[in-house]
Formats: sequence, C-alpha cells, structure tokens
Amino acid sequence: MTAPEYRTRIALLKKELARRGLDSLLVTDGTNVSYLSGFTGHDSMLLVTLGHNYFITDSRYIEEARESIRHFDIRLVESSSYDTISGIVKRARLKKVGFESMDLPWAVAGRLRKSLKDAALAGQKDIVEDLRAVKDSGEIALIRNSIRCTRKVLDELSGMARPGTSEKALAKRCEIAFIQAGAKAAFEPIVATGQNASRPHSRPTDTAIKRDGFVMFDIGCSLQGYCSDMTRMVTLGSVKEKFRKMYSTVRAAQEIAIGKVGPGARASDVDGAARSLIERHGFGKYFGHSVGHGVGMKVHEGPTISRISRTRLEPGMVFTVEPAIYVPKFGGVRIEDMVLVTDRGCEVLTR
Amino acid sequence: MTAPEYRTRIALLKKELARRGLDSLLVTDGTNVSYLSGFTGHDSMLLVTLGHNYFITDSRYIEEARESIRHFDIRLVESSSYDTISGIVKRARLKKVGFESMDLPWAVAGRLRKSLKDAALAGQKDIVEDLRAVKDSGEIALIRNSIRCTRKVLDELSGMARPGTSEKALAKRCEIAFIQAGAKAAFEPIVATGQNASRPHSRPTDTAIKRDGFVMFDIGCSLQGYCSDMTRMVTLGSVKEKFRKMYSTVRAAQEIAIGKVGPGARASDVDGAARSLIERHGFGKYFGHSVGHGVGMKVHEGPTISRISRTRLEPGMVFTVEPAIYVPKFGGVRIEDMVLVTDRGCEVLTR
Repeated sequence: MTAPEYRTRIALLKKELARRGLDSLLVTDGTNVSYLSGFTGHDSMLLVTLGHNYFITDSRYIEEARESIRHFDIRLVESSSYDTISGIVKRARLKKVGFESMDLPWAVAGRLRKSLKDAALAGQKDIVEDLRAVKDSGEIALIRNSIRCTRKVLDELSGMARPGTSEKALAKRCEIAFIQAGAKAAFEPIVATGQNASRPHSRPTDTAIKRDGFVMFDIGCSLQGYCSDMTRMVTLGSVKEKFRKMYSTVRAAQEIAIGKVGPGARASDVDGAARSLIERHGFGKYFGHSVGHGVGMKVHEGPTISRISRTRLEPGMVFTVEPAIYVPKFGGVRIEDMVLVTDRGCEVLTR
Repeated sequence: MTAPEYRTRIALLKKELARRGLDSLLVTDGTNVSYLSGFTGHDSMLLVTLGHNYFITDSRYIEEARESIRHFDIRLVESSSYDTISGIVKRARLKKVGFESMDLPWAVAGRLRKSLKDAALAGQKDIVEDLRAVKDSGEIALIRNSIRCTRKVLDELSGMARPGTSEKALAKRCEIAFIQAGAKAAFEPIVATGQNASRPHSRPTDTAIKRDGFVMFDIGCSLQGYCSDMTRMVTLGSVKEKFRKMYSTVRAAQEIAIGKVGPGARASDVDGAARSLIERHGFGKYFGHSVGHGVGMKVHEGPTISRISRTRLEPGMVFTVEPAIYVPKFGGVRIEDMVLVTDRGCEVLTR
C-alpha cells in the first residue's frame, strides 16, 4: 500500500468528522486502525482530530509503530490508556470526541467518559466502515490477488472431490493449501455434501461424498490483509433432477441479480431480483438469508445486499452475490461470486 | 464434555448471581456461551435467571441448537434480539438483569437498556470468566490433549531448526502441522532468531537461522476447544556466553516462580519471585511483561500472574509461567510452561 492512500483515507475521515460536527474520532476497532494507519499489530488505537493524528500504543508495539507508521504522532501509554487519551484531549482542547460505539465495550466507554472531564464523548456508527465499503485501486488489486489464491485452491479441491472422500479431509486440505500459498482461511471452510448442504453454515463432518452426489464448497482466504469468498457446487455423476432444477434456478437468480449491479442502483433491488426469481420457481421459503455482503479487510463488511438495505451502490464497492436454495433433508445449492461496481456497471471478479 | 458439568457450571453461576443481587445474567461473550451451554456456533446468547435458562439464537443456528443444547429453553429471534430479550424479561418479571459490560458494545447496551422498560440493566465484570479460571476435570483432560499436540509439533520444529532455515518456513510448518493433527494454531506462531527474539511479540520474517545461533519458538494450539501455549529456546552450535547467562537466569527464575505455586498462594508472589531473581542478576530492565496468564478455552484468560494481581491461587487453575529477558539488538530468552494448581501444590503440565 502506498503512503498517499493513507493520506487520502485520513482526509476523507476528517471531512466526515466535520460533517457530523465532531472535532475528533477515537478509532479502536483493530481493522479500522489498520485501514487508516497500516499498522497490523494489536491493542493500539488512533485519535484523529481535524488538525492532527495520534497513534496510541503500549510498550509491546511501540518499537514496531515507530518504524512503520507514517502520518501519525506516536504516543506511548505509560500508566493507562485513559490517562493518555485524556491528556491529549486536554492539551488539544477537544470538545467533542467521537468514538466507535459498536466496538467499545460499555464499561470502557463509561470509564473513558468519566476521564474526559471537559470534552463530550459521542458514540458514532460506521464512520470508517462506510469509507472502507468503497475500495481504492490498491485495495482492488489486493482483493484480486486474494481471489486468485482462493480460485486455485477451489480448483484443487474440485479435483479431489471423489466418492468416498470426507468433508473433513477436504476442509483440512483447503486450510493447508491456503497456508502453503502464504494466506490463511478467512473463515472455517464449508464443505458440505448431500443433506448437510441444507444448512447455510454447515460445518465439515466425517460424511463421505457419494456416487452421483454433490458438494458445496464455500471457501475464502485472507492474503496480505484482504479477503475473498466464493461458493461453488461440484457434482459427481448424474445428480437428481430436483438438484438440477435447484441449481438452474439459483444460477438464473444470480444472473438477474448481477444484471442489476451498477452505480446508483439500490442494493435492495439486487437482493429483490434474485429473491423474486427464486420465489417464482416455488423455492421462496427455502432462501432465508440476504443476497450478499461486502468483502475487503474483513470477509463480512459493508455494504449489505438485502431486502432492507438502504445503500445505493457506488463505484469501488466489492461484494458477494450469493443466492441459494436450502431444502431440509435433501440438500442445498448456493453459488457465490464477488463483484466490483465500476463506473458503468460491474465486473464479476471471480469468473 | 459430559452433561453434568454444564449443570454444575450453571449452578455456580446462579450462586454468584444471587451473591451479586442479580436475578439474571445476559451472557453475550461467545466463549462464555460455549462454556455454559456447549454450543460452538456464533451470534447466540444466554439469559440465565435464578429459576430458568434461555438460549437465544436466530434462524441460522436454531436447528443446530435444538439438536445439541440441553438444560436451556431455546428461543428463536424473530424480528430483533432486543424484542426477544425484553419479551422474556417481561414474562419472567425480572427486575435486575446483569450483562457482560466488557463484551457488549456501548451502542448495543444502550439500546437494550431502552428496550427493557421495567427492569434495570446492570453491567458486570468477570462473572463467567472467574468460573472459567478454575478448570474441572473434563477441562484439564482436554488441556492435556492440547498440550500433547503442541509438544509434538515443538519436537518436529526443533528438529527442523538448522542454519539457513527461515523463521517464516518454520512458522508455516507449525500451522500446517497443527491442522494435520486436527487442531489449529491458537495464535500466530512466534519463531524468532537472533535479534528478532528481543521483541516479546516478534512476527516471523524471512531471516534465516545462523550457525551458532538460537531460535525462540512460542507456539500453541486449540484442540477440541481448549488451548495450550509453550515457549522453548533451541540453540545451534556454541552460542555466546551472554546468551547462556540469560538462559540460566530465566531458567532459575522459572524454577523459583513455579516453586511458589500452590493453593492459597498469591499470584503476585509467583510473579515477584521470578522478577526479583532476574533483577538480582542485573537483567531487571529487560523484563517488562507479567510472568503468566491463564490458559483454557482462550489462550489468554484468568488468572493474571502479575505484580498487581490480587488473585489467590486455587486448585484447578491452569496458567503459564514465562519469565523472560529481552536485550535490544542482541536477542531474547523466554521459557514458558503451563502449570496446574493441585490440592497440595502444583503440577507442571508441559514437562
């Protein structure tokens, strides 16, 4: 990642602070700290004010921070982080300090509020998360690398999917292949065959793949800080007619949903297009979850692609489109691709 | 894990609720949910009242919960978890609902407080964590299994530590070996050679091991839900006299600290014994962190073995004893073992 990108991110953050009437934001979520500063250690935080940037860490990470962090004034926590923060707030004469209210635990925020005598502490949601939902070119390049790694592992697993092989053996191989590639599994790999695929979050069992069966692979990795997430169905021999009908319905639902993706489109329309097609084919009650989620530094982040999402799509957003049909006691079909919203429409990153 | 152990844990929790003047506790921390119920999925919570136990989850996990959870009345979140919780609180006529204030984010606790009209919401710390700090026999057996796995991998890595091998190659092999054994790394393996070992949280680099050098391996796994954590120093050829002096000092510090471990002993005395020996040998300023931490479902949990700890040791506590000396620009020595407090003294689990 080049330094100017951090500068741009911090500048965009300050613009949003001003818009919300804040003179500063305490960033405590580890992923957000990393997004704004490049730091990849733990237990550190940022205090970004309209005029200055502070990076706050303890003795375990101070050496690493001093060597690797630019654009931030690095401060060492001596006794307690409450004292360090309130010291900066006082000297900088801050009056309204925002904090990440979906991250900071109740007890910590309460104690911080007490330690900031003359400044108000104001809970904020999704400030940095909303910035993260729109990827810059460096991030898109890293996501492409991460996808390349997941595709390669998917190819290997598809080749290994033979009658008699167990879900657990394939899941284990998946995790090892990611590590060998310098990545790591972004979530526990889902390898589900037959009935087991009827649960959206099935966990690998000792069940072996059957002749004339099918396997759902939902896998993804994190590589150099960026994630990928794909689901593919692999069939063996001649699968049942019912499975084929489910598959073609999900495929058509995904096509129509991806067709809706473009700048200015409503996320809820992308979900709606897939959902109504599945309903028209009589599978409506077998599709409960939303159609997609953003992918970036985390494998689940903004934007949410659901019926109730109010998001308007913007160029640079990257998310999954993953309609599905889960029929209890029979099995499930999910097809998941990642798309990038472009200036004119969209690019399917995973094909 | 056998069912009676969950019953015992829940009974001990209720006793503590009564002692704190609470009629119930909302358990949201995922590890605590798992400890009390055996559930290993995500996004679920417990409401334990003096008279009843509720397990609250959504459609993704309801099927799994119904199949695997005993001792709990399973409730499905229909629209929002706030509504589900406040519905139960109202019907059960609860008046004082405790919640885990170091887990629940500020915004979530605030909204929950609003939704509970007639009941007070009271932040609580460490209720379940304090129970978890004392292991029952089933847990100790699982910790022994986890340690066996880590020891085996440590043996393999020690054999691979030859001049020219890089830290990263060894760390990668460590992660793969854990997966092959059915476990996973409990934290990013620390493999640090030479100067790199002078940072307590060094991350593996491309640095190769040198002839007449040394390597610090700090690794641990999670197996069937329980963790292990060990640090060993491996030397190659004839290491420097300074290293040997550091090593023998750390070894002696660990011996004297372990000698203090037993029921009724102060955790701070265990830390103090190691620390003062290191100080007497002139290395005091090179040992910053505390001497140990509890290990169980999480690799870092209670009790904390530090200068300021107020804990009195109890039989069933399991923790690390890991004195160290970190000399900048030269290297570091840490030796870490796990001990179990027994009725009469202690057992070193990792020897």
